[in-house]
Amino acid sequence: MVQKHFTTELLSTLDKQYRTHLINSLGGFKSVALIGTISNSNVTNLAIFSSIFHIGAHPPLIAFILRPSPPERNTLNNILQTGCYTINHINESIYKQAHQTSARYDAEISEFDITGLKPEYKNVFLAPFVRESYIQFAVEFKEKIDLALNHTSMIIGEIKEIYAPENCISEDGFLDIEKANTVTCSGLDSYHKTIRLDRLSYAKPNKEISSLTINCID
Amino acid sequence: MVQKHFTTELLSTLDKQYRTHLINSLGGFKSVALIGTISNSNVTNLAIFSSIFHIGAHPPLIAFILRPSPPERNTLNNILQTGCYTINHINESIYKQAHQTSARYDAEISEFDITGLKPEYKNVFLAPFVRESYIQFAVEFKEKIDLALNHTSMIIGEIKEIYAPENCISEDGFLDIEKANTVTCSGLDSYHKTIRLDRLSYAKPNKEISSLTINCID
Repeated sequence: MVQKHFTTELLSTLDKQYRTHLINSLGGFKSVALIGTISNSNVTNLAIFSSIFHIGAHPPLIAFILRPSPPERNTLNNILQTGCYTINHINESIYKQAHQTSARYDAEISEFDITGLKPEYKNVFLAPFVRESYIQFAVEFKEKIDLALNHTSMIIGEIKEIYAPENCISEDGFLDIEKANTVTCSGLDSYHKTIRLDRLSYAKPNKEISSLTINCID
Repeated sequence: MVQKHFTTELLSTLDKQYRTHLINSLGGFKSVALIGTISNSNVTNLAIFSSIFHIGAHPPLIAFILRPSPPERNTLNNILQTGCYTINHINESIYKQAHQTSARYDAEISEFDITGLKPEYKNVFLAPFVRESYIQFAVEFKEKIDLALNHTSMIIGEIKEIYAPENCISEDGFLDIEKANTVTCSGLDSYHKTIRLDRLSYAKPNKEISSLTINCID
């Protein structure tokens, strides 16, 4: 394998779009999902986010990164207005519609109407879920942290309700998101389905080392 | 599809381990990688992290979440001591070794020795890369943000150098991490390889809607 080396100097001189693609690819496969919100004047909004990350299970917290630029501003405004939002997994049947929500629409236009994805209201939760999504959860806004380094913001919320396919929930609580057809993305625009390699047991220090090194590349 | 509904009340009464698995699965497929560090007394450390996320490309920033508990403490100590670390993608040949680094080893034990993964030093960067990893990059520590909500910390760093397989770099800068055999994980312990569905073009508001709705589930 021949590796290309991008030095600090080379990185700083790359074409802006080239660098955007390259750096966005580096983090690995991303947690991508649709965030559903509604404004105080009842206009729904749906936007794709690819920087969603687990913060903790006790309390159940999840976060995502918001750019300062237009596409996500409606999502933020709605979250600050209503204090709530939904997160909806993207499956193979809807990833094109999901991607299309990243286009810049005006605040009065709902991406539900644009893409044909259907809003679904459940259990008196204010924000709309995505009906075509198999794994959906309701989130209550907790905190917005502004990152001085590049003027993005981190939005942290608490998971309040979860809807997931019964046949994808294991006895130990593990949710088989591959079985639920959830997709992942890489870079800005590449979507992928997955094939499980294995579920591994909880790692303990005394594990036999020889059993680990079988697959080791030299 | 029959959905199970976890209400707020049900979530709060779940067994702790069950809830840990469930909540960890909700974020979707995760960006998982090995973080390599070295202490001031030259002991190397290698630890797997599954909450790595892109912050921005200009400047090139990447972050990850650190729990307050022991397994990651060595990583944090080393980063604060030396100001630098490496992030190394995990491929199908080394995911078992990578998972094993999550076991709790004492600070004087290097996970490189335990797992058989080999430290690699390049271009005078202080922290060790993982030789068996195909996509490696060097990161300079920028900021630690403590999250009051659950006492985790976010570590933000700037990407300084990148090593990636030449034949996985597209003309537009997109790095084909699937071709580079990078894996993803879900929950606490499930590892997956991927199959690309498509790379989609940049979404614009005027895109023909009918072309999107073909795959729409009703």
